[in-house]
Amino acid sequence: MAAPREPEVIRDKAAMRAWSRRRRAEGKTVAVVPTMGYLHQGHLSLISAAAAASADPVAIVVTIYVNPSQFAPSEDLATYPSDFAGDLRKLASTGVVDAVFNPPDLYVRGAGRRAAATGGAISCLEEEEAAGDGHETWVRVERLEKGMCGASRPVFFRGVATIVSKLFNIIEPDVAVFGKKDYQQWRVICRMVRDLDFAIEIIGSEIVREADGLAMSSRNVHLSREEREKALSISRSLVDARTGALKGNTDCKQIKNKIVQTLTETGGQVDYVEIVEQESLVPVEQIDGPVVICVAAWFGKVRLIDNIEIDTRS
Amino acid sequence: MAAPREPEVIRDKAAMRAWSRRRRAEGKTVAVVPTMGYLHQGHLSLISAAAAASADPVAIVVTIYVNPSQFAPSEDLATYPSDFAGDLRKLASTGVVDAVFNPPDLYVRGAGRRAAATGGAISCLEEEEAAGDGHETWVRVERLEKGMCGASRPVFFRGVATIVSKLFNIIEPDVAVFGKKDYQQWRVICRMVRDLDFAIEIIGSEIVREADGLAMSSRNVHLSREEREKALSISRSLVDARTGALKGNTDCKQIKNKIVQTLTETGGQVDYVEIVEQESLVPVEQIDGPVVICVAAWFGKVRLIDNIEIDTRS
Repeated sequence: MAAPREPEVIRDKAAMRAWSRRRRAEGKTVAVVPTMGYLHQGHLSLISAAAAASADPVAIVVTIYVNPSQFAPSEDLATYPSDFAGDLRKLASTGVVDAVFNPPDLYVRGAGRRAAATGGAISCLEEEEAAGDGHETWVRVERLEKGMCGASRPVFFRGVATIVSKLFNIIEPDVAVFGKKDYQQWRVICRMVRDLDFAIEIIGSEIVREADGLAMSSRNVHLSREEREKALSISRSLVDARTGALKGNTDCKQIKNKIVQTLTETGGQVDYVEIVEQESLVPVEQIDGPVVICVAAWFGKVRLIDNIEIDTRS
Repeated sequence: MAAPREPEVIRDKAAMRAWSRRRRAEGKTVAVVPTMGYLHQGHLSLISAAAAASADPVAIVVTIYVNPSQFAPSEDLATYPSDFAGDLRKLASTGVVDAVFNPPDLYVRGAGRRAAATGGAISCLEEEEAAGDGHETWVRVERLEKGMCGASRPVFFRGVATIVSKLFNIIEPDVAVFGKKDYQQWRVICRMVRDLDFAIEIIGSEIVREADGLAMSSRNVHLSREEREKALSISRSLVDARTGALKGNTDCKQIKNKIVQTLTETGGQVDYVEIVEQESLVPVEQIDGPVVICVAAWFGKVRLIDNIEIDTRS
């Protein structure tokens, strides 16, 4: 790693865009790593991927913004962990981050006239806010946003696609890095970029795990020691499934049942276990091409997700 | 007007973006005028507005693309008029248009696997296309897209917001000009640009009318001479309503009833007559601030729209 270097902290949208355009005018590739803060080794690996994204000099922007629109009112927006000072130290220690974009709020708030609700699901943004003159534009990736995390978190991908569009329009990056731990999110963003013609290369960065296999997540901090131990059953069952599939156990119903059984026996509450095609996220019955097993499960009050890619042909 | 000058015709997305970035690097303001072709004096007035948009030299791109996703299968995509050679002559005659973006198709087509329909309304794009690997990302301006034209054309503004997002991402303009004849469309675009943080100034350009008052539209060509004569009742009734309002007749129910009566008596079939706040498009009962009266009506097989802004305080 390079020597420690303080990134510039930018809070204003116009200043952020001007910063980015200056870097681009200097011939630099602008790479963005969107985060919600409370950074861990997983995030730092995204930054390494950004640094390696181009042969040209890369100007790296890390965004730290907890996006209200991707949380439903019942979800954990209020308790989402944060440590901005700690985040800045970690970013400085990488020596490669040029700017941190940390805006106070990225949504226009209306005058308080509440419009008729348009559907079942609303986000924290809409709960606190009237629809009158406030934010009302949403980017929807209509097929990929359904199923898996989209089934149990109905506003999540709409909020993600929308905030990422906003960040893309503010920062105008050439490259953006997303973690494959949020596998469906990564595919949603890739599809959105293709469909809306954003001039941005999306890099999917591999999952970073603790020494014992637990996928890194800002939410892990909320796990008790006991819950954390139990939660190891997620990564273990995924690795076992992969090993089995490569040996010929490719029946998805069997594989899923076994994972559900393992997680349940260790005290987890399964949200979903799905085996889907890697790009389309369409469920498959038999593993005979590039697939990914995706899992979401609750341990205590913490919802964890994890996944493993498998390609029996490779 | 300047001397005639042939605009460069660009059909490829990457070439368009490269063209635009070169102009910007030269210090020019890039202005785009999105059209569906079959150009008339109304479009040319948008180009004049684009030319006047900045004190810097302006590079003007006119897009000509009939966007399938904003037409429902029941609508007139197949018969939408076109005359590319004539359009080019008209653009050359302005002497100020630098490029014409005329792509063959801007949507990714899937492999033919049809996903379950997600709602009632679909567009021509979705009818011809399976949802499998094809385009599935939509930009929705959820409140403004409802009502008026959105009520009778349920996929229209979704298609418009999406194609405009795509054109913005391909061309990366500094300025975009839209006609206020499509009043709701203009407001939808303004809101989308605000909500998604596009770095683009939107200019709303005034309605251009024939000598007899008919608002210019590519669809006017489909009117018979008799229908065209009858259709003048639209602009006449709007001007009468405005004159009346400025004299104190500000009761919206009365005004709307009178317009409906006039249009019906002259053989029109009214789709809607609405009096709404100019920015929010929320219906009002009394005219006591900046409002706009919007009308859509069929004359024969042609659906025409028109509107008039009124501000009794000015």
